[in-house]
Amino acid sequence: MNIKINTRTEKDLLGYKEIPAHCYYGVQTLRAIENFNLSQNKLNQFPVFIKALAMVKSACAHANFKLDKIEENKNNAIQYACQQIFNNQYHDQFPIDMIQGGAGTSTNMNINEVLANIGLEYLEHSKGEYQYLHPNNDVNMSQSTNDVYPTAIKVGLISAIDQLNTPFENLIQSFKHKSDEFSHILKMGRTQLQDAVPMTLGQEFGAFATTLQNDLNKLNQIMPDALSVVNLGGTAIGTGINTEVKYREYAIASLSEITQRNISSAPDLIEATSDMGDFVLLSSLLKRTATKLSKISNDLRLLSSGPRAGLNEIHLEPRQPGSSIMPGKVNPVIPEAMNLVCFQIIANDLAITLAAEAGQLQLNAMEPLIAFKLFESIDLLGKAMQMFQHKCIENIRANAEHCQALVENSIGIITALNPYLGYETTTRIAKQANESGQSVLALIKAENLLSDQILADVLAVNNMVQPKQCA
Amino acid sequence: MNIKINTRTEKDLLGYKEIPAHCYYGVQTLRAIENFNLSQNKLNQFPVFIKALAMVKSACAHANFKLDKIEENKNNAIQYACQQIFNNQYHDQFPIDMIQGGAGTSTNMNINEVLANIGLEYLEHSKGEYQYLHPNNDVNMSQSTNDVYPTAIKVGLISAIDQLNTPFENLIQSFKHKSDEFSHILKMGRTQLQDAVPMTLGQEFGAFATTLQNDLNKLNQIMPDALSVVNLGGTAIGTGINTEVKYREYAIASLSEITQRNISSAPDLIEATSDMGDFVLLSSLLKRTATKLSKISNDLRLLSSGPRAGLNEIHLEPRQPGSSIMPGKVNPVIPEAMNLVCFQIIANDLAITLAAEAGQLQLNAMEPLIAFKLFESIDLLGKAMQMFQHKCIENIRANAEHCQALVENSIGIITALNPYLGYETTTRIAKQANESGQSVLALIKAENLLSDQILADVLAVNNMVQPKQCA
Amino acid sequence: MNIKINTRTEKDLLGYKEIPAHCYYGVQTLRAIENFNLSQNKLNQFPVFIKALAMVKSACAHANFKLDKIEENKNNAIQYACQQIFNNQYHDQFPIDMIQGGAGTSTNMNINEVLANIGLEYLEHSKGEYQYLHPNNDVNMSQSTNDVYPTAIKVGLISAIDQLNTPFENLIQSFKHKSDEFSHILKMGRTQLQDAVPMTLGQEFGAFATTLQNDLNKLNQIMPDALSVVNLGGTAIGTGINTEVKYREYAIASLSEITQRNISSAPDLIEATSDMGDFVLLSSLLKRTATKLSKISNDLRLLSSGPRAGLNEIHLEPRQPGSSIMPGKVNPVIPEAMNLVCFQIIANDLAITLAAEAGQLQLNAMEPLIAFKLFESIDLLGKAMQMFQHKCIENIRANAEHCQALVENSIGIITALNPYLGYETTTRIAKQANESGQSVLALIKAENLLSDQILADVLAVNNMVQPKQCA
Amino acid sequence: MNIKINTRTEKDLLGYKEIPAHCYYGVQTLRAIENFNLSQNKLNQFPVFIKALAMVKSACAHANFKLDKIEENKNNAIQYACQQIFNNQYHDQFPIDMIQGGAGTSTNMNINEVLANIGLEYLEHSKGEYQYLHPNNDVNMSQSTNDVYPTAIKVGLISAIDQLNTPFENLIQSFKHKSDEFSHILKMGRTQLQDAVPMTLGQEFGAFATTLQNDLNKLNQIMPDALSVVNLGGTAIGTGINTEVKYREYAIASLSEITQRNISSAPDLIEATSDMGDFVLLSSLLKRTATKLSKISNDLRLLSSGPRAGLNEIHLEPRQPGSSIMPGKVNPVIPEAMNLVCFQIIANDLAITLAAEAGQLQLNAMEPLIAFKLFESIDLLGKAMQMFQHKCIENIRANAEHCQALVENSIGIITALNPYLGYETTTRIAKQANESGQSVLALIKAENLLSDQILADVLAVNNMVQPKQCA
Repeated sequence: MNIKINTRTEKDLLGYKEIPAHCYYGVQTLRAIENFNLSQNKLNQFPVFIKALAMVKSACAHANFKLDKIEENKNNAIQYACQQIFNNQYHDQFPIDMIQGGAGTSTNMNINEVLANIGLEYLEHSKGEYQYLHPNNDVNMSQSTNDVYPTAIKVGLISAIDQLNTPFENLIQSFKHKSDEFSHILKMGRTQLQDAVPMTLGQEFGAFATTLQNDLNKLNQIMPDALSVVNLGGTAIGTGINTEVKYREYAIASLSEITQRNISSAPDLIEATSDMGDFVLLSSLLKRTATKLSKISNDLRLLSSGPRAGLNEIHLEPRQPGSSIMPGKVNPVIPEAMNLVCFQIIANDLAITLAAEAGQLQLNAMEPLIAFKLFESIDLLGKAMQMFQHKCIENIRANAEHCQALVENSIGIITALNPYLGYETTTRIAKQANESGQSVLALIKAENLLSDQILADVLAVNNMVQPKQCA
Repeated sequence: MNIKINTRTEKDLLGYKEIPAHCYYGVQTLRAIENFNLSQNKLNQFPVFIKALAMVKSACAHANFKLDKIEENKNNAIQYACQQIFNNQYHDQFPIDMIQGGAGTSTNMNINEVLANIGLEYLEHSKGEYQYLHPNNDVNMSQSTNDVYPTAIKVGLISAIDQLNTPFENLIQSFKHKSDEFSHILKMGRTQLQDAVPMTLGQEFGAFATTLQNDLNKLNQIMPDALSVVNLGGTAIGTGINTEVKYREYAIASLSEITQRNISSAPDLIEATSDMGDFVLLSSLLKRTATKLSKISNDLRLLSSGPRAGLNEIHLEPRQPGSSIMPGKVNPVIPEAMNLVCFQIIANDLAITLAAEAGQLQLNAMEPLIAFKLFESIDLLGKAMQMFQHKCIENIRANAEHCQALVENSIGIITALNPYLGYETTTRIAKQANESGQSVLALIKAENLLSDQILADVLAVNNMVQPKQCA
Repeated sequence: MNIKINTRTEKDLLGYKEIPAHCYYGVQTLRAIENFNLSQNKLNQFPVFIKALAMVKSACAHANFKLDKIEENKNNAIQYACQQIFNNQYHDQFPIDMIQGGAGTSTNMNINEVLANIGLEYLEHSKGEYQYLHPNNDVNMSQSTNDVYPTAIKVGLISAIDQLNTPFENLIQSFKHKSDEFSHILKMGRTQLQDAVPMTLGQEFGAFATTLQNDLNKLNQIMPDALSVVNLGGTAIGTGINTEVKYREYAIASLSEITQRNISSAPDLIEATSDMGDFVLLSSLLKRTATKLSKISNDLRLLSSGPRAGLNEIHLEPRQPGSSIMPGKVNPVIPEAMNLVCFQIIANDLAITLAAEAGQLQLNAMEPLIAFKLFESIDLLGKAMQMFQHKCIENIRANAEHCQALVENSIGIITALNPYLGYETTTRIAKQANESGQSVLALIKAENLLSDQILADVLAVNNMVQPKQCA
Repeated sequence: MNIKINTRTEKDLLGYKEIPAHCYYGVQTLRAIENFNLSQNKLNQFPVFIKALAMVKSACAHANFKLDKIEENKNNAIQYACQQIFNNQYHDQFPIDMIQGGAGTSTNMNINEVLANIGLEYLEHSKGEYQYLHPNNDVNMSQSTNDVYPTAIKVGLISAIDQLNTPFENLIQSFKHKSDEFSHILKMGRTQLQDAVPMTLGQEFGAFATTLQNDLNKLNQIMPDALSVVNLGGTAIGTGINTEVKYREYAIASLSEITQRNISSAPDLIEATSDMGDFVLLSSLLKRTATKLSKISNDLRLLSSGPRAGLNEIHLEPRQPGSSIMPGKVNPVIPEAMNLVCFQIIANDLAITLAAEAGQLQLNAMEPLIAFKLFESIDLLGKAMQMFQHKCIENIRANAEHCQALVENSIGIITALNPYLGYETTTRIAKQANESGQSVLALIKAENLLSDQILADVLAVNNMVQPKQCA
């Protein structure tokens, strides 16, 4: 083939490269593309991160302008370019791999170059005419990857968490609706997979809502605040070399305005430059939610097992044929997919832990993996929660009669008779029921151990599924 | 051998067993000993947990007495027995394996039996005369393993965290002292293991203090409150079957008094009975600290590498001969041991995650592993922090002259000249220095690029290691 | 207190220490005790490792004697001392923590010192009179921790694997016996927890035997050979500095004789000194077995769930009362404990991975954690397998009638009718059965779709649980 | 928008759906697309897996044709369609998510549908006219997802491993070339980051080659054989329901021919249907390689640290500018990216472990995650090895003079004098050198401890970096 692509020539420390003329990214982005052809995951898959990078750039330009470091028209051009990014334009110009060496330098240069070239066109120059607006000297002024990159990750994560709130909250509500719907369905509780004592199916689904609500609360209580403390202004290693004292203050004030968040400066910028603690914590919280969702999925698969040779207490709406060989078989594919997502998130937490531990001295060079895995986990979790809600939870039906029958046939209800008959007698009846296959009620009635009225009272749903009201 | 041990006979659901007469534990503890001979780690290695179990038992007995469920002398006996446990007596009577099936039932029965037998002697009966004070009917009255056990783990962990505070805080202080001591030692900062820009050794050690302080703060802000919400009173599955409404209130009030903590009841006891979320979170926070301590250990080993062919910026006090073959070799054994502890804690977090995910329906049967690993991680961390402080951090000396020489000889200081010479010129000088081996200062002077006064001013320590004060 | 303990004075690079007179270990062991007070796990909990250390020491002394480097009486003394260790004597003299810095130097010095002092008494000198037999100069002659320690770990692991074979093989046999015993019990197979097609309970237990046999085979095929390649003779970093060419050959020949294994020298001793690959692989194989045993435990807990509201296909013998509140409840405590052991082993694999990755340059300083976790995992696995066999598998009973009833009542048997009725018809019948609750057989008979004889033939056990013999 | 897309109507168990007319996939693929919108990773990113699916389909059709179950023209159509897939055609027709519930049913139906529609066109019918060639009845004849899917994963992994061999072997060769190139460069060996004894840089790089060669050998020795044992013919749960005895034999013979591998049938198909052991083992081997590559990357970053304030023994070719703020700074971005890839692979191993452990009864529903992560890990590893070789290892230069100077200035060389001067004297000299900063040689000469000739002989490179030849 002999296709002729128009190019422009760009130059950096290592020499000259030809850049396709239509590209808004430049020479350093191109090097990153060539150096890191590793994963299927590119920066452009994470728009929330790209926008966060632009937010930081916008804030820094404002600060530089306020300090008279940059001319008005350059600032205008940068601000215009950032606005395009906020409006989801030019996101295809971020084709670099999420797995990249260089501690984020490639990502930082990608945004610097794209903003510069958008800005150049705004200024009616051609792409690549960096003498009028330079990726490093202007867009990256007063910045180092080492402060800009972690700050942008944090800002991006705050947005991502924000977006996660909707599917998270909706999923919780969905469990709550089911809890209400199932509030009068009596069923056997089980501990260690053995029949225990009765409860309602509503209580079971209510617990799913509660446990997820606890996680959403923790996430919102802890993370946005933690992530709002940034190292912007620390430049290379946190000493703030080559910045003025006021710069940091202005840049962070501007960033607060742009993000509509109360962003603040880390008190120890040396520490903040290399520390990954808040990322580890966020990943831990996501992992905590993953362990819960996996447990819930396991429960739903257990409870819907059958239809004949399983527990069969609930019915999941079929989503796809389950077997090409077994007629009529339908599988719990949505909870299964949720399990897989949860395992992925748990594994991501390990990748993040490994990367966090591997930081050395004044920087953590493994930060790109941390960013990648955190944005991926949140994205996965949000999508999986939507799937879980709409394709599973909302449509669950209870097999109420079967649930009720299992309770009536159970040995566990004898627990409620302990206070009347004593532990020794109930143990004897329980054993007898177990061995003979008879029902506990039948045995008690046969021995005339309790009057029908007391029995009825003790075994009333409301008396079995909550503490007794004192007389 | 034909040794005759005096025994007493005890009985449970499964039949009769002979218990050595001197033992305060009973038949169910003995079954656990026989069933679970797995790890080298026994309950008696965790006194803080044993005491927490006794605290819960004491609180429940108080509540039962208040509700007229138990006679005064029985309550007195139980309270006396608990007091003995608080005073570190009888802890050898808890020889069961920390790895145990049964979701903690063995642990619960171990404390029930030991308290009953101590109480029986207090009441001037013999061990095993359970008709006067019964492990199940009296000591375990109104309780299920399923509420008592998680509650005791939480109470125990609150104490354990409390105890961890001292070595944690001391270690932080130790880093702070070093930060002060080293505040005037100029050294090269390094990013991605490449020479970056200057900083002080005090800033480096200050960052260690800061990052650990952040963790200690997070631990104290989040965990005691989270762990203070318990499922006591939920009994078997959280429905509170066989309890009166008031019981839970009284038991928790009493537990608050005994622990001197504001213990409260979980709003959803069904959820609280099976949920492991707070344990996962605690483990995550411990893991976060472990990643930081491991990173710090790595840094200390790097900075003390040498003595001749390494960085050699700091000197660790020798703790033991380093080699049987290499004369004079001394190794950084204390940071190395800290690394190992950190890896263990990170691995424990995985064990806890696996166990948390494996919960099913109304209970998590894997809770004993969670308890084991959490108490182990905290214990390890506390001991390792003491070791780190006393045998390493406190005695670190700086090789100040070498640090200073590395800065003066560095290319990185040229960064500070960017604002005066421009990026292009400084890049040219940097390249020239790199290729020729000459010093940056010499090259600048040779070219007469800056006056000596400006150079001296720019390169003054205070001007390189912090932002410039605006004029 | 004012207890007077007799001591002797010893000296090393760092100075003098008082050693209790009765102790066979010396000054460097004492330093390790003081430096590393971390875990509850001491070297003396792993006799197989202590013996392996003595085997290596014995082999090296033989080689030194053959090369005329050491006098005959010294060699005799060392050999005598090693023999004591082989006979399980003096193992209490290894009280150092398994978590230790120093890349194993403390462990190497512990064995050097103990052997020297046992040898000194054999030579009719007093402990500590090292001029007659020196821990370093004589016992450690031609050795470095860096070659002796990994070699001893490998030799110890070969023994440990050897010991693991018995419980592993016994457990497999136990599953095989059950497979035979259950070979005629028809039951529903389940995929994705949904009823699938029939199988025998014997096939199910046979698969447990097969899957574990595969692991045992893999373990024996891969590991002893891999672990038999050692770096002995490489001394400090693998260059073999300060050894003669013949030394390595002699030492390894002697080690082969002592261990009755075909030990050989690694072809690249530089690599072998720092590489942890075989340890990672062994841990992986143990983890693989752990994932299988955990899956089997999960299955057993599922299959025995009930007794009334679960699958209830098998019955596990009760091992301890399951509840203090629910009469007659018995839990699957042995499979649960097995799950916990498996989670621990999986977590140990992570600790080993972290430690392996953290090696630097010519040595892996994290090797003590690798040794600790590997010996612990094998020990745990062996004990857990014994528990599993004797306290669970051997005593499992089948609920044959219930199994059979579930098959007859199942919709899944219709799969066998596909070839006769076609997928469309069977799907229609399956749906109808599912919705109406009727049995598949009844519906087919009602519609007269197949003759009774064909039905009987198709649904014969042997025709459903294996491929059809061609006519 | 109001775009009109031509569609065809398809139907399955759950009802009718409109399929875009140009699509070769059908209704069940469409359901999977709608159900699982989770990750950024689609089946079409793994051509090796798609081809393996087609290989299995081809083999099964051959077997069915041989057994007269399928007409010749249908078989021809299926074979034609498979051939298209082998030729990399139609791979865009596999847009389903790698994270999917259903234990692979969606993947199996995707290939069934695409093959059917390609085949239909070959038979001169239209897409969707399944009466002439049916995805289930014809393409999936005698098959279940439960045997086809794991078999295809195994076949695909064998190919993937095969493809990995080239970059793996090339990387090893690259290290070997460097080992030869650097064979005469003397440098300090380091243990525990402390100066140890001399070695050559060639030995160091040779060890990298050796350790990777060991892994490649292990991979090739263990995995292709293990993965060649398949459960094809086991259908739903391994009982082979609805197949004839000969079918399995024919299908596997055909698969062997197609794959040019010696594929064989698992002896226990029940076990083979649910077991994930070989996948866990493969992941473990990949993880082992990842720990080694990460260690090597760490070493390279350490050895190239500097240029002035680090070890600076080797020079990595610059790949991209390292800093926007620090002139001339270049970072080791390629080894860093390799670290990230290794962390990802280690984390993937955890995902696979979690999924393997979560199998239940007769199937592992989590298998899609295992397939995803294995193909991803191999793909990542191959790409990263190419990157490592071409963009890093091949171009490494040694700083030979600096290496030599570090040796001459070292204290560690004194180890070689032990046999001449004794440990006590060398220790004294070492201490003196350390404290005074003087060179060891100078001190020895000052004390006249050894003749110049002996010194020269002892310190000759060849005498320090290998065992001494006996006289």
